[in-house]
Amino acid sequence: MSGYTIVFTADPDANFKADSYNQFTNEINMDESELEIHPSSYKDYKRRVSIKTLVLTSILVAACGIGVGVLIGWFSKSSEVVPNDPEISDAFKVWQEALEETDGAEVTKMLLDEINPENIRENLRLLTKKPHLAGTEADKEMADYVKSVWDTQGMETTRIVPYDVLLSYPDPEKPNLITILNSDGTDYFQSQPEESKLDEGDKHNDTVFPFNAYAPAGVVEGELVYVNYARAEDFKQLEDLGVNASGKVVIARYGKIFRGDKENQAWLRGAKGLILYSDPADYAIEGSSSVYPDSWYMPPSGIQRGTVFRPMGDPLTPGYPATETAFREKYEDSELPNIPVQPIGYGDAIHILREMAGDAAPDEWSGGLNVTYKLGPGLVNNRNIKLDVNNRLQRNTTYNIIGTITGSLEPDRYVMIGNHHDAWVFGAVDPSSGTAVLLELSRVMTKLVMEGKWRPRRTIVFCSWGAEEYGLIGSTEWVEEFTRPLVERAVAYINIDIAVQGNFTFRGKATPNLYNALYDATKAVPDAPFEGHSSNVYDTWLRRMKDNNLNVPYISNVGSGSDYAVLLSRLGVPAVDLRYTYDPASGLAGYPLYHSMYETFYLVNDILDPSFEYHRVIARVCAELARNLADSLILPFKASDYAFKMRRSLDGPDGLKEAYEEKMATRGLSFDAIDIALNYFTAAGQALEAKILHKRYGDSPFAVRKVNDQLMLMERAFIDPQGLPNRPLVRHIVFAPSSKDGYFGDIFPGIMDLMYDIENGMDNDSKWAELEKHMSVIAFTIQSAANTLVEVGELHARP
Amino acid sequence: MSGYTIVFTADPDANFKADSYNQFTNEINMDESELEIHPSSYKDYKRRVSIKTLVLTSILVAACGIGVGVLIGWFSKSSEVVPNDPEISDAFKVWQEALEETDGAEVTKMLLDEINPENIRENLRLLTKKPHLAGTEADKEMADYVKSVWDTQGMETTRIVPYDVLLSYPDPEKPNLITILNSDGTDYFQSQPEESKLDEGDKHNDTVFPFNAYAPAGVVEGELVYVNYARAEDFKQLEDLGVNASGKVVIARYGKIFRGDKENQAWLRGAKGLILYSDPADYAIEGSSSVYPDSWYMPPSGIQRGTVFRPMGDPLTPGYPATETAFREKYEDSELPNIPVQPIGYGDAIHILREMAGDAAPDEWSGGLNVTYKLGPGLVNNRNIKLDVNNRLQRNTTYNIIGTITGSLEPDRYVMIGNHHDAWVFGAVDPSSGTAVLLELSRVMTKLVMEGKWRPRRTIVFCSWGAEEYGLIGSTEWVEEFTRPLVERAVAYINIDIAVQGNFTFRGKATPNLYNALYDATKAVPDAPFEGHSSNVYDTWLRRMKDNNLNVPYISNVGSGSDYAVLLSRLGVPAVDLRYTYDPASGLAGYPLYHSMYETFYLVNDILDPSFEYHRVIARVCAELARNLADSLILPFKASDYAFKMRRSLDGPDGLKEAYEEKMATRGLSFDAIDIALNYFTAAGQALEAKILHKRYGDSPFAVRKVNDQLMLMERAFIDPQGLPNRPLVRHIVFAPSSKDGYFGDIFPGIMDLMYDIENGMDNDSKWAELEKHMSVIAFTIQSAANTLVEVGELHARP
Repeated sequence: MSGYTIVFTADPDANFKADSYNQFTNEINMDESELEIHPSSYKDYKRRVSIKTLVLTSILVAACGIGVGVLIGWFSKSSEVVPNDPEISDAFKVWQEALEETDGAEVTKMLLDEINPENIRENLRLLTKKPHLAGTEADKEMADYVKSVWDTQGMETTRIVPYDVLLSYPDPEKPNLITILNSDGTDYFQSQPEESKLDEGDKHNDTVFPFNAYAPAGVVEGELVYVNYARAEDFKQLEDLGVNASGKVVIARYGKIFRGDKENQAWLRGAKGLILYSDPADYAIEGSSSVYPDSWYMPPSGIQRGTVFRPMGDPLTPGYPATETAFREKYEDSELPNIPVQPIGYGDAIHILREMAGDAAPDEWSGGLNVTYKLGPGLVNNRNIKLDVNNRLQRNTTYNIIGTITGSLEPDRYVMIGNHHDAWVFGAVDPSSGTAVLLELSRVMTKLVMEGKWRPRRTIVFCSWGAEEYGLIGSTEWVEEFTRPLVERAVAYINIDIAVQGNFTFRGKATPNLYNALYDATKAVPDAPFEGHSSNVYDTWLRRMKDNNLNVPYISNVGSGSDYAVLLSRLGVPAVDLRYTYDPASGLAGYPLYHSMYETFYLVNDILDPSFEYHRVIARVCAELARNLADSLILPFKASDYAFKMRRSLDGPDGLKEAYEEKMATRGLSFDAIDIALNYFTAAGQALEAKILHKRYGDSPFAVRKVNDQLMLMERAFIDPQGLPNRPLVRHIVFAPSSKDGYFGDIFPGIMDLMYDIENGMDNDSKWAELEKHMSVIAFTIQSAANTLVEVGELHARP
Repeated sequence: MSGYTIVFTADPDANFKADSYNQFTNEINMDESELEIHPSSYKDYKRRVSIKTLVLTSILVAACGIGVGVLIGWFSKSSEVVPNDPEISDAFKVWQEALEETDGAEVTKMLLDEINPENIRENLRLLTKKPHLAGTEADKEMADYVKSVWDTQGMETTRIVPYDVLLSYPDPEKPNLITILNSDGTDYFQSQPEESKLDEGDKHNDTVFPFNAYAPAGVVEGELVYVNYARAEDFKQLEDLGVNASGKVVIARYGKIFRGDKENQAWLRGAKGLILYSDPADYAIEGSSSVYPDSWYMPPSGIQRGTVFRPMGDPLTPGYPATETAFREKYEDSELPNIPVQPIGYGDAIHILREMAGDAAPDEWSGGLNVTYKLGPGLVNNRNIKLDVNNRLQRNTTYNIIGTITGSLEPDRYVMIGNHHDAWVFGAVDPSSGTAVLLELSRVMTKLVMEGKWRPRRTIVFCSWGAEEYGLIGSTEWVEEFTRPLVERAVAYINIDIAVQGNFTFRGKATPNLYNALYDATKAVPDAPFEGHSSNVYDTWLRRMKDNNLNVPYISNVGSGSDYAVLLSRLGVPAVDLRYTYDPASGLAGYPLYHSMYETFYLVNDILDPSFEYHRVIARVCAELARNLADSLILPFKASDYAFKMRRSLDGPDGLKEAYEEKMATRGLSFDAIDIALNYFTAAGQALEAKILHKRYGDSPFAVRKVNDQLMLMERAFIDPQGLPNRPLVRHIVFAPSSKDGYFGDIFPGIMDLMYDIENGMDNDSKWAELEKHMSVIAFTIQSAANTLVEVGELHARP
């Protein structure tokens, strides 16, 4: 079989088959000796697809035999070597440990058994006693608390790491208000300055007034226009309907996209102010009869807070850490939001929407309020809307807490587990459900270490971030400060922000490098013991959230929305986000009480997860995933999963080729170079995986480290220091938060953005040249990732 | 001694003492247990300097005792463990190899003994048989030749790596000419189109016409102005003397700075054309009686060719490799030179200078021609100068050749040795003297490997670059293509371009990381056996090129001028350049025949190094340095040398503080943050070095790898992906080619450039803000390098 050319096996001209994922991943069972990295040109690739079955079958049969033989040989040899001399024996033990897997099953059992839902409940009770907004005294108290818990648990090092960052607060004396003005200038209606206190748990004097962080102060007055979710496509449709948002105040409902992008779209269209509200259609789908505190749905006075700042990190120190001596940009040079924005509840919104003039909105723009949704412009009876925002920018200190358990053999390899601790109010779901899990996890891990029952091979780093709610600020500044050691040493980052926001199924967001490990972890963990749930997490997940056409659970792309974003998109550290969620078919725009003052301990303890079994699931999945990453002799990363994901995004249904290939061809552009590079990457990944499967990577600790470094550093190659087109600090070429919706993870975001521009009024030579350049950068970057996987002598074997 | 604060010991308020270098480096003899990284603030630092002697003496005495004990204990333990069971014994042998030094002295002896000057002579004879200009057929022939040599020698992998790049050639039919026009438009004088053939060795039909690569084609005519060396300060002086170069053709002598910067300065001052010539004062200092072929001095018709392109790499693909599918910028978007430039010999220049009008030039502007040097503007008798340049841009292929010897234990660590193979004509000195050495070195190393006498612990990568003469193009494209594996795996890059340009002393350019290893290598190698030379290379070097005030030989900063530049300034790979040179006090601007057609085998074989002993010295220093880097258990890098170098450039005589502190203070800027970061870096480096000295880094192969990774990757931390101010692709914050002279290596180049701007007409808020930001970036970057050196638990102990 020598000289056989590996080709990508999914047929690019047909739809993806249900079994193509498994077929694809099975191929690495080929023996390494049969692989020669010499990927075909695109033409070859097309041609060879048709003969693949025959060739692959032969290889698989041969490979299985050889593979089994090799496995038997290898294992039987290494296990028989037991020295007698005690001195040699000691040294030899270290040597063996360096080259052998620890007994994963035993450690898994200890970790899983020890995780106690009652501890998570108690953690959450303590964490949600009072509001803990970033930059306030409560931020520091929370940092001290987390540190003291870790110190008590026996964490080996704990540090509080402060940053001096620009934050934003409403005026405590002058709440932000929306007013309807009569034509004579008198008040007709005014919004509530704050939410109603409905339950014992939400009564606290430190509750911050509802506001959108970084929305500039200002009073704007004028005609009102309804813009649905304020997405780019909503504004486009609005224009088609003959209504112009320019110079108007606009009102949009929350949901579908990140609120910062709503502000950005409104500003781009010339709106001078933005009102955001939570529509019952998205946040109280059972109507006002069943709302908090009777259910988890949003009551009329409930208001979603949240930042409208779009970049990551401190607004004044982009790209560099906000330490004491850092240079601060001027406000006018930073990317702060441009127009006043204020959120209100639907109890207020109905009074405003009911007064609107103009044509009726399209059916799908109508929400759940008992009014006829109209587009505007303007209100009836020549009334006007006034938006009065008194937010203030303020430099304050926020705090990260970092704790470590040192790895036994590879202390300079970091498996990171993190969540933020700052909350808009009590934050019982966001973020404290995650922090409650994190603190139980750290308890269990430090306990096993202190009792001498376990020490991870690699270092585990626990992170509790500050000021995430303002734009991933604590994590971004930390990543900026410690870029070098992290780029060199971070194995992966596991994020648990909102641990539990429903009881339907586990769900994950991850880079493809981690798909395999995430599937394995969810298979190893029992699901919550309730009706409708399978015996393990994976089975429920697969049943309830199957990936289209593939026989695996669906894993979302990593966009933004929590701290994992900066680790992946700035540094190329493989990242994963874990959560238990509600049924996505429910129509909810998020868990209903998100960022309101009703995110209380009561909500979680009495309504969302009274048994804390769903919290336990997340803690256990995290524990098992971290154990695998920290203990495995060879890291469980799969370049072949990465290759498949990229291939699918190009050739699969709704892929980039389907969307753009034809239009690109009119300008002489094609995906050929990307195809060729991706084929090479695929072959390189499969060859490395075959080598790993058959333990053909060598028998010294340095050989183990070499393979692990290849696996660990592969994702770093997707980082281009020059960044994505027009987003210099977003540097991952394959995955990035969508520039139209920060929550969503685009694949090949540069192509998406440039083609969007071309299709929306910028169909010109310079934009096409940008695209041509970017597509060549993508091809180069994929090739560069492949170069990480091959040996030095093969480096120059360009496809 | 617990809690003692390490401080930098050179007194910043006094001149550096002769022994301060040794004192500084000796401090790491402290035992690690006595070190706590908690660097003082700058105030502390100033205060503690005064009590340092007492404290250090106590520490040294205590530390020596402990150190010796530790050494005895460590060695006695590890050497006694010898297992009996043959199976264990085999595995254990690998384990021991992984943790023990190879016998360096034995390998050194084999390498040094085997290097044969007669082989170098024969290599050079073959390499210089005909011109081999980049992008011509001879470039490919040279690549094939080098590959075939390596294949024959037994190199384990060899690859030719082509790039499709933009090059520049004169018109073979229409040579570039300088003409003096009479006032009636008739020709008064015309320059020679080519050099005279003076010797058998320089007769060849493929000799390219003299030209400056990338100088645009064009005919410019007008008044002439003499601008000395065309440095920024020359133009400034010229203005003070009342002569304006704007709109004029200017004539400048070669020397002092890189010719591309002459073009840039001329263009910045508004000149419309530039004539370059080699003045006898710089290139024929013994007058016309003693020139080639009778001596190594430039004859009247000799012309220095050379590029006037300033950036590194292919002009059309900045930042990305010039592969087949790369995106090419338009010419107008690239940084190609702006005005026509043409070089001439002093045989022609004298006819032009003699005709000049205007005031006499200042004394120090007068060269060695027997004329009165005048400034212009214009020529006598209303004559004008005409510059007729017919260069053409052309995309051609250039070739790198890469060969490898795989490392035994750490194949994924690369020690690189390289030189370019393209030459302006025969290139007997530049670059073939280096290539002749490189091919002998590869012969010796592959021979020892094939004979089973040696295999380096780490991989050795041999590089033969294409198109260096055009702007480090082959190496830059390769570095751009293989950035990821190089950033992760390259230990160091050793450059030998011009191996021998004189017989006075060895000289090196290097990053401070490599000072120690370079000193050690030169101590281990005998110097050439001629009168005036000491027994080893180091001693001659120390005697003839002592570093000011320090008792060590002088090592230059790494600027540009050869391929090491891109490895260091783009990637942060420690780099060193090796050469045997003439007496710098001679007044020569370079070796006289540089880039002329008289760089022949005859020149080297009959005049420059008839015994090839100086070539042997360079080969041996390179061999020993590479061996040390490739074989040492712990890499011989010294962060403390880096710290000292930076400290000296700030506080030492002619340092940045002396130059700028006062002026900065008027704007509220200071070096405080940089001082604090540098103290922390110093302490971190010393602590790590103490740990290494006393072998306190742990006893597993992973521990060895961890320390080596810290040492290897420290320099990477000086790379800022955002680059230097206004130079985004020059990314090393500490060392970079000067923006005023590409040959020169600035330390803290960003400060130099911004202060230059401020002191030359841009003393405004925005420039000061740029400086303030950059100084905060420097402090951060030094801190970041320190973070590479400490343990994870110490990461957050900010100074």
